[in-house]
Amino acid sequence: MPTPNSSMNPTQVNFNSPRKFRTTLKSKCKETFFPDDPFRQFKNEKPLGKAKKTLQYFVPIFEWLPQYNLKMFRFDLLAGITITSLAIPQGISYAKLAEIPPIIGLYSSFVPALVYAILGSSKHVAVGTVAACSLLIADTIGSKVSSKDDPTLYLHLVFTAAFITGVFQAALGFLRLGILVDFLSHSTITGFMGGTAIIICLQQLKGLLGVSHFTTKTDVVSVLHAVFKNRNEWKWETAVVGMAFLVFLLFTRYLVGKLHKGLNPISIEYLNFDAEYLPYTLKAGIITGIIALAEGIAIGRSFAIMNNEQVDGNKEMIAFGFMNIVGSCFSCYLTTGPFSKTAVNYNSGCKTAASNLVMAIGMMLTLLFLAPLFSYTPLVALSAIIMSAMLGLIKYEEAYHLFKVDKFDFCICLAAFFGVAFITMDMGLMISVALALLRALLYVARPAACKLGKLPDSTLYRDTEQYAEASGPPGILAIQLGSPIYYANGNYIRERILRWIRNDEGNGKAVKHVLLDLTGVTSIDTTGIETLAEVLRILEVKHIKMKIVNPRLDVLEKMMKSKFVDKIGKESIFLCMEDAVEASYDFSATTEKQGFEEQRSGVA
Amino acid sequence: MPTPNSSMNPTQVNFNSPRKFRTTLKSKCKETFFPDDPFRQFKNEKPLGKAKKTLQYFVPIFEWLPQYNLKMFRFDLLAGITITSLAIPQGISYAKLAEIPPIIGLYSSFVPALVYAILGSSKHVAVGTVAACSLLIADTIGSKVSSKDDPTLYLHLVFTAAFITGVFQAALGFLRLGILVDFLSHSTITGFMGGTAIIICLQQLKGLLGVSHFTTKTDVVSVLHAVFKNRNEWKWETAVVGMAFLVFLLFTRYLVGKLHKGLNPISIEYLNFDAEYLPYTLKAGIITGIIALAEGIAIGRSFAIMNNEQVDGNKEMIAFGFMNIVGSCFSCYLTTGPFSKTAVNYNSGCKTAASNLVMAIGMMLTLLFLAPLFSYTPLVALSAIIMSAMLGLIKYEEAYHLFKVDKFDFCICLAAFFGVAFITMDMGLMISVALALLRALLYVARPAACKLGKLPDSTLYRDTEQYAEASGPPGILAIQLGSPIYYANGNYIRERILRWIRNDEGNGKAVKHVLLDLTGVTSIDTTGIETLAEVLRILEVKHIKMKIVNPRLDVLEKMMKSKFVDKIGKESIFLCMEDAVEASYDFSATTEKQGFEEQRSGVA
Repeated sequence: MPTPNSSMNPTQVNFNSPRKFRTTLKSKCKETFFPDDPFRQFKNEKPLGKAKKTLQYFVPIFEWLPQYNLKMFRFDLLAGITITSLAIPQGISYAKLAEIPPIIGLYSSFVPALVYAILGSSKHVAVGTVAACSLLIADTIGSKVSSKDDPTLYLHLVFTAAFITGVFQAALGFLRLGILVDFLSHSTITGFMGGTAIIICLQQLKGLLGVSHFTTKTDVVSVLHAVFKNRNEWKWETAVVGMAFLVFLLFTRYLVGKLHKGLNPISIEYLNFDAEYLPYTLKAGIITGIIALAEGIAIGRSFAIMNNEQVDGNKEMIAFGFMNIVGSCFSCYLTTGPFSKTAVNYNSGCKTAASNLVMAIGMMLTLLFLAPLFSYTPLVALSAIIMSAMLGLIKYEEAYHLFKVDKFDFCICLAAFFGVAFITMDMGLMISVALALLRALLYVARPAACKLGKLPDSTLYRDTEQYAEASGPPGILAIQLGSPIYYANGNYIRERILRWIRNDEGNGKAVKHVLLDLTGVTSIDTTGIETLAEVLRILEVKHIKMKIVNPRLDVLEKMMKSKFVDKIGKESIFLCMEDAVEASYDFSATTEKQGFEEQRSGVA
Repeated sequence: MPTPNSSMNPTQVNFNSPRKFRTTLKSKCKETFFPDDPFRQFKNEKPLGKAKKTLQYFVPIFEWLPQYNLKMFRFDLLAGITITSLAIPQGISYAKLAEIPPIIGLYSSFVPALVYAILGSSKHVAVGTVAACSLLIADTIGSKVSSKDDPTLYLHLVFTAAFITGVFQAALGFLRLGILVDFLSHSTITGFMGGTAIIICLQQLKGLLGVSHFTTKTDVVSVLHAVFKNRNEWKWETAVVGMAFLVFLLFTRYLVGKLHKGLNPISIEYLNFDAEYLPYTLKAGIITGIIALAEGIAIGRSFAIMNNEQVDGNKEMIAFGFMNIVGSCFSCYLTTGPFSKTAVNYNSGCKTAASNLVMAIGMMLTLLFLAPLFSYTPLVALSAIIMSAMLGLIKYEEAYHLFKVDKFDFCICLAAFFGVAFITMDMGLMISVALALLRALLYVARPAACKLGKLPDSTLYRDTEQYAEASGPPGILAIQLGSPIYYANGNYIRERILRWIRNDEGNGKAVKHVLLDLTGVTSIDTTGIETLAEVLRILEVKHIKMKIVNPRLDVLEKMMKSKFVDKIGKESIFLCMEDAVEASYDFSATTEKQGFEEQRSGVA
């Protein structure tokens, strides 16, 4: 146990023997998989209470239904009707994007909404299909089976992809792998949505204007070039387009196609796991599954935060997963909580997931009685609906904010945007995620270290680059190392420390003591400890003493296990910089006692 | 500028305007690509001196040759002769592993050694071929072209792979991408070498014992089972094997094959970049290139450190690269600085790279006059040589050390070992590297945060888990966040902070102030700042004040650029924990003044 107020060190480092492996493993697993401590509510409960809580935990409708009242219902009814009115045209439009019959879009706002109302833990999420995933499904499945040549097989594969999405999402939720979704950064999503919006809009432009001689290419450059070439004619052209709309509306025969009355037919027997198509359905299912989760969870969280509530990401995954599994068995394709619909739901004042129930009932009535009416929806109106939704997804200010605050985030965003716009949607996404991962790895490979100096009239040691007035005590080089000290940065850290010593010596300042402040280092691995041992050995040859300041629990434990503490000596490990500096000045008296003799045996 | 000794904050945070993007970019690039500051020696030099230094930098022989003397030569001569005597059997053995004519192994210790003597910056590295890479080449190229059916084409592809290795290594060196090699962790190498040693030994066992009825499988389990089944017969069997050796030596007709006199023939015209074979030569070239670099640089560094010298990794890459490019044009295959040979070189007392020159000359004489003699080397002797070298590569104690100090490192090591032994060499390597990368990513996804408490009789705030006697001031929750705060951990950090608040409140301690100590946080991205803003907003609703302690240069700059500083208010950012705690107690007086009204506009 530490003994405060000893003569040399007022407070000492705690050299208790390391915790058991089981203890550290348990704590690490908890932080990795259960950071939100989902079982806290089960503590101090009797068995019956526990069972009730468990049921409420997994099936949230049991949590809010008992407290439900008429006043809440009035809000939910209004919100539900509003999102139903949005769900009908959106469902039809996005089904067209996915190149499946429009009625599937309507089906997809019925069954999944029912499931989510029972299992969903967010109060604001409104269930529905999403544009980006619809296009991605068409892209992936379409590369194997043409939606025109074999529409039945194509549709069945789309159901299968939704089923796979559901299984994948539910599995992530059960395995508490919400951590995977964390790696889809906000910058990636911003760029991906923007890029998708652009290519979807371009597709609509082509359809809207009916211009086969406009440009044969679909990529951004060609289309924009054709548009901007005649900039002075814009007004005139818009007028022509407006006229064309009218002509379209009057004479168009491009209607949506027949919409039959009736509820979702069962489609479970159509799920197709044929080895020939499996790679495509798997790819479509998993990629769209991740994007849909990121969108659905992010939007749910955003609105929850506004109301100071919490959304359990892993629970949401399970809800989304079951929604898609059940949906795929009832002629629905991929659904999630789309940004636009959820925002409308929130703004309409929804109070609980009951608004999804209302939407499901509204959709049921539509399917039973009104579906044929929507057959007369002209394609041009759908294009307009899609475009207006898409243009809202291009967030210039967000991108500018990224540019201003963090250039690397901006690059990640741009990579997704241009990747999607100029290559393919999945490549764009992957490049962007890879860049984001690269950033994380670069961080680990080059953790920022800094030289500390003492601030005048204080006992504080701070970065000399940040505080120009901070200056090191003579003969002492104080360094604060960045976290973590891992295999990927061992060489770097050694070079960095040696460089500071060279610089100081080059400036005529003899270095007698190197103090390594490990306050910020939360993790170290065996290579990291070897690096410190190597530095110790190099410094020894140079007749420089090395001291460690404030090693954290994990770091100190590994230092003890690997005998590094024995090598450097407990008397060279301090709890704060001030103590280490003072001890350095008392150095000549104690230097002979320290046991630096141990040498690491050479590599053979 | 900070004004020390103001009434409330003794020393204040430096809110200077952020550095220019160019400045930070330059500093980041320097830390990423030039951590060892290779150009330091060119500073303060006249043009002529600079030219000389540059020449010496890129062609190190000009650095050591002028100081070379007879005494050094005596050491180098001895070391050179020693490694030549090792190079001959090793060259022949490893060439057999690579399934190429044994003379190529001898060629490979001649030309590359000459090149390295001129370009290499390590004094101790002895150039030669390596077992693991030889086997890997045979594996990869052999999967396309059989070395038995078309030995000429096979050989030419092996030269081509060596050429590609050379270009790849030199390119990495010129682009200063030594950082890539950093990601091959020590644990990976330990496991990979061990696994390779096992499968190579098993192959030799099969050849040594001539036992086709022993077991038909090559994997570890089957062979060991067959061996251990008759454990009591071991002694007797070894005797039989020993006898068998003799019989072999007497009657064997499995000799090495003809070794003709003569130096390396030129092979540049045989380099084969045919599209059909390119994927295989590329794969073999790049994977072996990375492994060879890791081995060569690591061994060079290890010995340099023992003598308190430095080896420039990027320069070594260029040297290894040219060695392989030139080698592949003169009938050599992949070479690097092997562990075993370099250790022998070091222990024989080599002083400079001249020992490689001596070996090159020795090898030249061997090739010119003695080569035919080695035709009579029996295969069984080669097997014995390989096995004894391989057994030294299985480092039990190293693995045990990993197990004791760091279980994750041990898993990385095991993955490489078992991957190589039971799947394939490249899969084993990749699984292990992937695990190591996963560890780095997990670190970023879950940076360890801790709750701080004040140590009795001091002003120090330390981890309450590490120092049980540390306890928080009432009403204040002090948290030290881990680094970095990135997109991958934003959600985690928010949950973690909220969990501590819940815990404290659950224990009946009201939380009025949350102080976030960012001392250890060296990097933050836009999502990270949004997370802090979100936490600020959540705490506001709970009527809890949030304060930031000691933000570092990079972090504070981004907080200022993103207007987070304006949101929280400069008066809520402190230089040390003590100040923040004191200010919290003065809180009621100043609470009305603080401008917390700003709200982030909601997500639409």
